[in-house]
Amino acid sequence: MSSFLRTGKKIVAIGRNYADHAKELGNAVPKEPFFFLKPTSSYIEPEEGPVEIPRGVIMHHEVELGVVIGKNGRDIKTSDAESHIAGYTLAIDLTARNVQDAVKAKGLPWSTAKGFDTFCPVGPFIPKSRIADLSKVGLHFSVNGTVKQSGTTADMIFKVPDLIAFVSSIMKLEEGDVILTGTPAGVGPINAGESFTAKLTYPDLEGQVLSEYTM
Amino acid sequence: MSSFLRTGKKIVAIGRNYADHAKELGNAVPKEPFFFLKPTSSYIEPEEGPVEIPRGVIMHHEVELGVVIGKNGRDIKTSDAESHIAGYTLAIDLTARNVQDAVKAKGLPWSTAKGFDTFCPVGPFIPKSRIADLSKVGLHFSVNGTVKQSGTTADMIFKVPDLIAFVSSIMKLEEGDVILTGTPAGVGPINAGESFTAKLTYPDLEGQVLSEYTM
Ligand SMILES: [Mg+2]
Ligand SMILES: [Mg+2]
Ligand SMILES: [Mg+2]
Repeated sequence: MSSFLRTGKKIVAIGRNYADHAKELGNAVPKEPFFFLKPTSSYIEPEEGPVEIPRGVIMHHEVELGVVIGKNGRDIKTSDAESHIAGYTLAIDLTARNVQDAVKAKGLPWSTAKGFDTFCPVGPFIPKSRIADLSKVGLHFSVNGTVKQSGTTADMIFKVPDLIAFVSSIMKLEEGDVILTGTPAGVGPINAGESFTAKLTYPDLEGQVLSEYTM
Repeated sequence: MSSFLRTGKKIVAIGRNYADHAKELGNAVPKEPFFFLKPTSSYIEPEEGPVEIPRGVIMHHEVELGVVIGKNGRDIKTSDAESHIAGYTLAIDLTARNVQDAVKAKGLPWSTAKGFDTFCPVGPFIPKSRIADLSKVGLHFSVNGTVKQSGTTADMIFKVPDLIAFVSSIMKLEEGDVILTGTPAGVGPINAGESFTAKLTYPDLEGQVLSEYTM
């Protein structure tokens, strides 16, 4: 499944899955998960070139743990969810925040705000065996060397098996699909000319770097 | 590109592209196109089995002309758009209208309302050469033998080349991607046990049947 970037068909991104992030944008903490789709055309790897900020867009970073699906499934049970995971990836759910605010106010889809080309930087595939405890992954993001996000998957409201069960009750999950599991607090803009670094660490905040994406 | 159902990665669906349909749902006629993504996991062909109505969902039909992309492109010019078209397909943009109404009111994504499994019935690939004039395609939908939708692509607000240019200015279009170009007036529910027929005709309303989907 290291080929998920080329073969995967969907990116299912969970919204507001960390209470502190939901609150920082003035949103209620959700009672059940919700998600949106990012197009796989928004994937970009470090060697492919820079992230592009579209004209007039205020682009926010959201560092997330991506779950790479390894086996097709519909209506997957929470107890079976683990067997559908091939591995993980570091992902940045880049968001045109001003576009998103405008469409939210009008009840319009989020697809443009979340789907611009280069809006889903991703690191390499991380085999499942590398993360023994899914509640102990650290998520970090810095801009120009200043730490902006530093969280842990321990704070996810809905856990990965529940997310797999929920999503697959609506749309089947296929080999190579990726679920972005939400972002901790600290989101904010990346401006033209600024550099950034995203990191996954394990175990948790004091652990070793599992994956790093710098630009 | 007859393999688009297996190889395509995205379905980009245009909203409110026929003025009479925008009005019937109480929406303003848009000044620029907007779109949402349906997952390709929602595709279903007639021989694959029935459309499934999820529990509690009021499922509406929207018959649409699908444009199948044959060549990758970013920032495609309107004048070049035609060269990126491989052909067409009859598509039904099934919509959980009650779910959509609820998320619109909350400013949430449309992905669930539009993305359930079996929510994108599609007919066979229609080579580009079969439709010489894109403004003369008839779109028809009947439920239990009663005609509900009967429109013509002549009434599209934004024409296909403009849609290709618009979408590809936000997200690149790839071989096998499909653009659903919007639905004419007459949308409404399909209830459990009801049969339906969707048709594309050419030229226009008095023409021959190009494609038909019955269930
Ligand atoms: Mg289901
Ligand atoms: Mg996110
Ligand atoms: Mg539609």
